[in-house]
Amino acid sequence: MSASTVAGPSSPPPPGTSGTLADYVLGLADDALVYTQRLGEWVADAPAIEEDMALGNIALDLLGQARSLLTYAGSLDGTGRSEDDLAYLRDEREFRSVHLVEMERGDFGVEMARLLWFSTTRLAIMQRLARSEDETLRGVAGKAVKELAYHRDHARNWVVRLGDGTEESHRRMQEALAVVEPYVTELFVDDHAAVAAAGSGAGVRPSEVEDEVRSYVEGVLAEATLRPADPSRWTARDGRRGIHSRPMGYLLAEMQHIARSHPGATW
Amino acid sequence: MSASTVAGPSSPPPPGTSGTLADYVLGLADDALVYTQRLGEWVADAPAIEEDMALGNIALDLLGQARSLLTYAGSLDGTGRSEDDLAYLRDEREFRSVHLVEMERGDFGVEMARLLWFSTTRLAIMQRLARSEDETLRGVAGKAVKELAYHRDHARNWVVRLGDGTEESHRRMQEALAVVEPYVTELFVDDHAAVAAAGSGAGVRPSEVEDEVRSYVEGVLAEATLRPADPSRWTARDGRRGIHSRPMGYLLAEMQHIARSHPGATW
Repeated sequence: MSASTVAGPSSPPPPGTSGTLADYVLGLADDALVYTQRLGEWVADAPAIEEDMALGNIALDLLGQARSLLTYAGSLDGTGRSEDDLAYLRDEREFRSVHLVEMERGDFGVEMARLLWFSTTRLAIMQRLARSEDETLRGVAGKAVKELAYHRDHARNWVVRLGDGTEESHRRMQEALAVVEPYVTELFVDDHAAVAAAGSGAGVRPSEVEDEVRSYVEGVLAEATLRPADPSRWTARDGRRGIHSRPMGYLLAEMQHIARSHPGATW
Repeated sequence: MSASTVAGPSSPPPPGTSGTLADYVLGLADDALVYTQRLGEWVADAPAIEEDMALGNIALDLLGQARSLLTYAGSLDGTGRSEDDLAYLRDEREFRSVHLVEMERGDFGVEMARLLWFSTTRLAIMQRLARSEDETLRGVAGKAVKELAYHRDHARNWVVRLGDGTEESHRRMQEALAVVEPYVTELFVDDHAAVAAAGSGAGVRPSEVEDEVRSYVEGVLAEATLRPADPSRWTARDGRRGIHSRPMGYLLAEMQHIARSHPGATW
């Protein structure tokens, strides 16, 4: 797992840097697929049954988005790979998700901070993709927008409730923002594939949505009586180029071990 | 955990034996709640993404049924306990679920065998409860019937596909039936609460549905070219009286630890 994060100068060009539309779509798919796994970890563990159901529903919405996007990516790259091939048989270096989604689960406040940044950003991107020149992306995005608006509201409500709650919940929510902060800038980095996809009218540059997303989140924090986190010295980067952290290795092992131990089996 | 399963003669009367309607409703609720936890363990782990979604949706359907039933049970017993109180703050001996749902996860074939027995039985019961003299149960059951019909079809399709599949999948599906077999008879035992609830026109005796359920499952097995499992020497019992196995302790610890470590907190 860790070996794949040290690409020396003589390594082959990393996957996902070719800047194709398939790469762009894979990035959108992998963000949702990987985050689904993290949200799934809350299933037996949320602080209330109602929340258990809400996080479960959010995870299933994102898994649905991932499936459509993986299937589309497989049809674009000419390899004929199915959604399952792409989910279960790719190596870590081929996953194009941002680090925010692979980050290990923290407490419930950290999860709501992550969900707020994630869903606000993804919603802003999907709103633009709903007017993409690519018909398939238009279709996926049109459905995703409705789902993500609900996810964002859900996160917003919790951040306000905890931030503007007890002294303890306020303190922990404030800490949660700091935990997530190093993973935020990566959301707005224009990778090769996004630039190319935006150039052809199919995609959206992440940097386009940054102001809108930051302004929305700042509004939520103000309502929650929370300060924005201080900028972090270290920031995550290059997830879209297949550079991932140790928790991603474990996440993929968990997600892929059944399919990999029975290759090609229907069992 | 294990201490609670050895009730000596001088122990207080076990909870759940008073035969009230609340106890009957709790049994229906707990079967769904506990099985939700087991199904949730498949979220990152199903053999295909489509199956991941299907099991996730089934788990959420059952969690929805559990919520409605827990809320109703809390209103019936006069203690004013909420769905969360009942889910997170009861001890193992107060859970009225059958052993089938607490059984540790096996392979995918075992899960489909469990789901086939569980959903066929619960569907037969809910179909009758949809004509209950209790208005709340009628409402819950009316919705549950549609969900369970889908769950049963899903299990049936997999059992047929695996049983009538490769030599390997047939062999493993046949073994899966044997794994589940010791937990089947308990599904049809008439506990005090069910007898009382049936007497008042609100509930259904489990023994009433046995023939119908066994005949349905036998039809599926025939189609799947599988033999019914040999009757097992040991059979599970008394889950409705709060007698559970070791895996139930771990399941409850996992489900309850967050709520219990922050009693009364919204955090």
